[in-house]
This record gives sequence, C-alpha cells and structure tokens, in this order.
Amino acid sequence: MDALTKAPARARRLSAARESSGRLTRRADDGSERLADASLRIAMLAPPWISVPSPGYGGVESVVSTLTEALVNRGHDVTLFCAPGSVSRATVVTILEEPHPDAIERALFEVDHVAEAFDQIDLAGQHDRFDVIHDHCGFTGLAMANRIDTPLVHTLHGPFTADTAAFYAHHGHKGTLVGISRAQLASAPRGLEPLGPIPNPIDLRAWPTQARKGDYLLWIGRMSPEKGPHRAIAAARAVDVPLVLAGVIQPGRQAFFDKEIAPHIDGDRVRFIGEVGGAAKQSLFAHARGLLMPIRWDEPFGMVIVEALACGTPVIAFPEGATRELVVDGKTGFLVADVRAMADAIGQLPRISASDCRTWVSQNCDGDVVAAAYEGVFRSVALPRPAPKLVLSA
Amino acid sequence: MDALTKAPARARRLSAARESSGRLTRRADDGSERLADASLRIAMLAPPWISVPSPGYGGVESVVSTLTEALVNRGHDVTLFCAPGSVSRATVVTILEEPHPDAIERALFEVDHVAEAFDQIDLAGQHDRFDVIHDHCGFTGLAMANRIDTPLVHTLHGPFTADTAAFYAHHGHKGTLVGISRAQLASAPRGLEPLGPIPNPIDLRAWPTQARKGDYLLWIGRMSPEKGPHRAIAAARAVDVPLVLAGVIQPGRQAFFDKEIAPHIDGDRVRFIGEVGGAAKQSLFAHARGLLMPIRWDEPFGMVIVEALACGTPVIAFPEGATRELVVDGKTGFLVADVRAMADAIGQLPRISASDCRTWVSQNCDGDVVAAAYEGVFRSVALPRPAPKLVLSA
Repeated sequence: MDALTKAPARARRLSAARESSGRLTRRADDGSERLADASLRIAMLAPPWISVPSPGYGGVESVVSTLTEALVNRGHDVTLFCAPGSVSRATVVTILEEPHPDAIERALFEVDHVAEAFDQIDLAGQHDRFDVIHDHCGFTGLAMANRIDTPLVHTLHGPFTADTAAFYAHHGHKGTLVGISRAQLASAPRGLEPLGPIPNPIDLRAWPTQARKGDYLLWIGRMSPEKGPHRAIAAARAVDVPLVLAGVIQPGRQAFFDKEIAPHIDGDRVRFIGEVGGAAKQSLFAHARGLLMPIRWDEPFGMVIVEALACGTPVIAFPEGATRELVVDGKTGFLVADVRAMADAIGQLPRISASDCRTWVSQNCDGDVVAAAYEGVFRSVALPRPAPKLVLSA
Repeated sequence: MDALTKAPARARRLSAARESSGRLTRRADDGSERLADASLRIAMLAPPWISVPSPGYGGVESVVSTLTEALVNRGHDVTLFCAPGSVSRATVVTILEEPHPDAIERALFEVDHVAEAFDQIDLAGQHDRFDVIHDHCGFTGLAMANRIDTPLVHTLHGPFTADTAAFYAHHGHKGTLVGISRAQLASAPRGLEPLGPIPNPIDLRAWPTQARKGDYLLWIGRMSPEKGPHRAIAAARAVDVPLVLAGVIQPGRQAFFDKEIAPHIDGDRVRFIGEVGGAAKQSLFAHARGLLMPIRWDEPFGMVIVEALACGTPVIAFPEGATRELVVDGKTGFLVADVRAMADAIGQLPRISASDCRTWVSQNCDGDVVAAAYEGVFRSVALPRPAPKLVLSA
C-alpha cells in the first residue's frame, strides 16, 4: 500500500469499526470488498515461551491452540506465530530457535519474537495481507500496535495489577482489547473499556462427559494460600468425603505445603498426586464427584471450572473473581461463602445434572462459540480489502 | 511530516550517511540545513531499571550519565528518557512510576518505557523534532527501530551470546550499531558490521590522579570464577603483597566464595570489603599499588581498568576480551599469561608512570572524546532539517 492510498483506507477502517452491530454485507461504493462473510486472514501471535498446545501446564498456549483450530474449522486462513514444536492445522511459523519456558517475560525473547512476526506480517503482499493480528504475547505487540498497519486485537489474559494497569493505561488505546470475564473487565483502569467478555475456549471433544462418578472430590491448582487447598481439605474432612489434590508446588511454596497440606495427606481420605496432564487429567476431572474452588483472590478466569463442567462434574466455589460467572448457582454447582457452606454444599451435589453442566459449557465456552465471537471482533476492525483490478481494453 | 515529503527525506538520509568522512558542511540544493556544526536534538534512551547515574552499581546507567553530560557540554539539546530519580543537565523525562532494579529485562517494563518514549519522540513537532535516538535500553528500541522515522543508534553494551547474536542477526540492520571494543566487534555475527569501537566514557573530574600510592593491590568485581578473585589471591600471596578484594557476592555464588575465597581472608594480607561506591571507591582505586584483572572470559569492556588508570593506578591483566585494548603493555600496566607471570609483574609496577596511565584515559575515554565520536555517528545518520519557510509576497 503506498502513501497515497493509506489515508483513505484508515478513514474507511474507522467507519467500518463504528458499525458495531457486526456483519458488513455490502460492497462499498469504490468496489472494495467488505469482508462480509469472506474468510479472514488472521495472524495469531502466540508467546515464544512454550509450544502450542503446551506439553504440560500452559494456560495461554491452550487457549491459543483451541481458538486457532476452531477458526481454521470455520474456514479462516490462520497463520500461527509461535514457539518451535507447535502443532496446528494453521500455517505454523516459528521464529526463535527454541522455546524458552524458563525465561518467561524476558524482554530479549519477547521482543525478538514479536518484532520478527510484525516484519513478516508487513511483508505479506497487498492481496494476501493479513486482516487482523490476534495478540496473546505479553506486552510488546500492543505497545507497538500503533506502528503497524494491520489492526491488532489483544486478549487480556491476566489480572490487572498496579504494574499492568499502568501499562494498559499507556498503551491500551493502540489495539482492540478483549477481556475474558466480567470480573476482569470490572477491574480495568478507567477509560480503557475492553470488549467482551469472551471466555476462554475449550475443545469439548477432548473432555467427554462422564455421568457415572467416583466417590472423591477434586481440588487442582498451584499450591498457594489464595488457591485454598487447605480450605478444600477442611471442607472435605468436615463431611468425611475423600479428596484428591492435584497440582504443582512452585518455588517458594514448599513451606506452605509442608505446614498446611502435608500433615493432612493420608493416602486415603486426602491424597496428593502432583501435577497431571493429558488423558489422566481428563479422567480425573470426569470421575470426580465435584470440583472444590475455595479461592480467595480476584481470579480473572477459571479454566479448571470449565474443564470440570465439560465432563459433567459440578463445581463448588467461593464467589471470587470469575467464579460468579462460570458457576450457575444451583444449576452447575454452588457458590458458597466459606468452608462451612462448602461442606454443606457437598451433600447437595447429587441435585446437579451432569448434562446441565456440559450444556452450559457447550453454549458458552465451546471452541466454535468463542471463535464466532472473536470473528465478530475481527470483522469489526479489519480494513476493507482493495478492489480487484479492472483490466481495460485500450 | 506528511506522507508526500517522507520518501524524498529518506532518500537524502541514505546519501548523507554514505558521505562517511563526517561533517557535512554544505547546504543542500533544496535549501535544507545539513546539520554541519549545528547542535543536535538527541533523544537519549536509558533503561527503566535504575536511575541515571545509578546510586550503586549500574554500568549502563553510568555510561549514559557521563555521555549525556558531555553531549550537553558540547552544546547539544539532549532529552534523557530514564528511570525516576535521575539527575542530569539534559531535559529529564521519566516514564514509569518507579525504577525497577529487581525486574531487569522484564518485558512489561522495558516495552512500556520504550514504546512511550517512541510515542513522545514522534510527538515532537516538525521544527523541534529529534535528529537521533541513542538507545541503551535492552532490545525493544532496536527491534522496533524500523517503525519510527527518527534514526536510532544502538550501543552494544553486552557480549554476544548465542541468544543475543540471534537477536542482532534478526534486527541489527534496523539501526546503527556501535561496539565498545575491538574484542566485542570481532565476536559479532557475520554480516553485522557495527561501527566503532567507541569506548565507554569516564568523567575524569570524578577520578583525580593520585601519585602517592598505598601498599595494597586491588581486585574488584563480581565474585565468580571467570573474574578470578582466587587467582588474584594466589598472585598476591606469591609475592607477599597485601590484597584488597571488593565486590558483590551474587545469588548462586556463595558456595564459590565460601570454598575459594573465604579461607584466605585474614584481614591483613587478604581483606574483603564487600561492595563499595562513590568517594570510597574512588579512593580505593586511587591509592592502590595496582589493579589485578586475572579474568578468564571474553569481557567486552573493563570499566574498572579505565577507572584505575584514570587515578594513575596501573593494571595487570590476563589478555582476555578487551583488556588487550585497555592496557598498554609496559606503559599503563602489564598483560600477563597466568598467575605466575602476574606475580612477577607485581614487582615491575614501579616502572609504570601514573601520569602515563591518566594520559591514556584522557586521550581515549574522556567524556568529551567519546561524545565527539558519537557526535560523528549522529551526524552521519541524522536526517537533514527541513528548509526554513520562504514567505513570498503576492
């Protein structure tokens, strides 16, 4: 695109974005195509740290994987910029020589990855240019989004802290921000107004419903006070139901684990199985009587809630952060104020229908549902495609 | 600058850069000013981690401080983008709320700082626009330098490792790179060809010569095998001369210190004084009989060598990395192959003249000398200023 055509294209972009009701079906007066139902060219910008999907724990990489495959299924032309080792039906472009799981957030790698992806996006010719960048990679893409012509959509994956709120206050206007829960959006800095929420997606085929449950309750997560494994133990002990604890003990958390958790582990009523993944994790969720989420922090999402519900496993959660949106009280589980109420709710779990849980996920978090929501955002920001060239006879 | 004038300006920039001999004295045919002897508008981009100059150890911040003050002295209009708490005679612009000494290289802060600085640089009007960005801040500025109109000069502060060499191979062409030693330049990835070397500067007023020395030898640095404190002890012990060790024990180095260093400390022949700064550090350097640098790594520069020589204190170094350039064998100290030769050279220290040491620094690393060298680089990349507007009577 040369300098002379750039300015009008930008003006059209703004007016297209304002037609917020969505699908733009008419051809513009100048003959340019409005991307109404056409497939989109999407540059999916994953982080450089871990391959997509992640071999172990990798929240953002799982989200990117599920969404990418769902967008490909919907007929879009997706290029996935990601760490080596990634597998996808999209066009996979890896930039750095290796993943960097032990250097997460190191500027050297994030900047190298994003700047090179931007350069490759710029190199796409006028007729195969990208319609949108969907950015999941830290901070570099959004902060520099005013320096690339392709519109950038940035999913907010984390909570707003003092540091990230300052960052988004500085740079949030440079792209289209999408939040993942109402709780997260409510904590956004004033004036930011992200779109959404669009929840994190799940591939339902990987999480089959299991109606016939085992006898145990499940707690899964990082071993830390705000995640509440000690409270899960207290609730399960109070009603003498077996509890399985799964998750990692991160550096700095061994003392908490040794003091608050280890003394309760007896291999029978309270079991600890460490980190699980893959089919073992899915089976663990599917056969649990219920998932306990006695958290005490403003968690912006709760992927484990969605995974449990997908298997037809109800959830009992404290009403913190996004749990109030992901658990429908009395329908897919219970929202309870404290450990005592959690213990009481365990007895009510048979009232919850496994298929109700599955249906809620299917309607709200299924990969295709989430991809359709993002597709609407992408169409609202995409620039019109240039008109096909007319060949005139002399 | 509008889109129509941008392309010709860029073409002029390339031809100006090719006149590599330096000062451009003629007015161009179109009347634009060629910045011949005019003062430059320089955006000095310091890191966001530590204030300038650093209150404690801060290699890059000290370099930026000395160079900035020297450029101001030479009449240039310098704006220093830096961490809060910085002090300079330049225009000081701080971006983040606080320094982040414990989050060095964290992408969130580096990207926030650089992207905001770029935005402010872009906002400068046509007639007070910056001529050049001098970038000392990690990786973000260089990787995005093709996305800002102001030319960017990037000083290479670190060694080339596998990771940084890959980064510079990807993004080095986007700015003008300047190395700090021939040893560093020799290890640059093929095809990179940085300018220089331009050594790190020192403010000679802060390091007065001391001709009358004490009886001790000095070793200063991080406590690590490649820096060789254990070798300095062996050399000093061999000729029974007192040794003062100064420096930090970084995380992970306690075992090395406990095993190789601590057993030798006796408070008399071998003393350990921890980290020193300010006037105490200058006095320590000035009164030493000599500085020992028995290093075993490809160090890209050696600021402590320059600091010692500035005080008239000679240096005995292993010929590794930049020591071969910073020590003139037999004139400002000795380059020796091993501990045995280092011990022998200690006896030769009286042959070295304090004023020869000082003179070498004055001629090579003085702030004004270094600033003049950078000024040449800046002039070679700066875009011509727009011609003054002619008002025609109708």
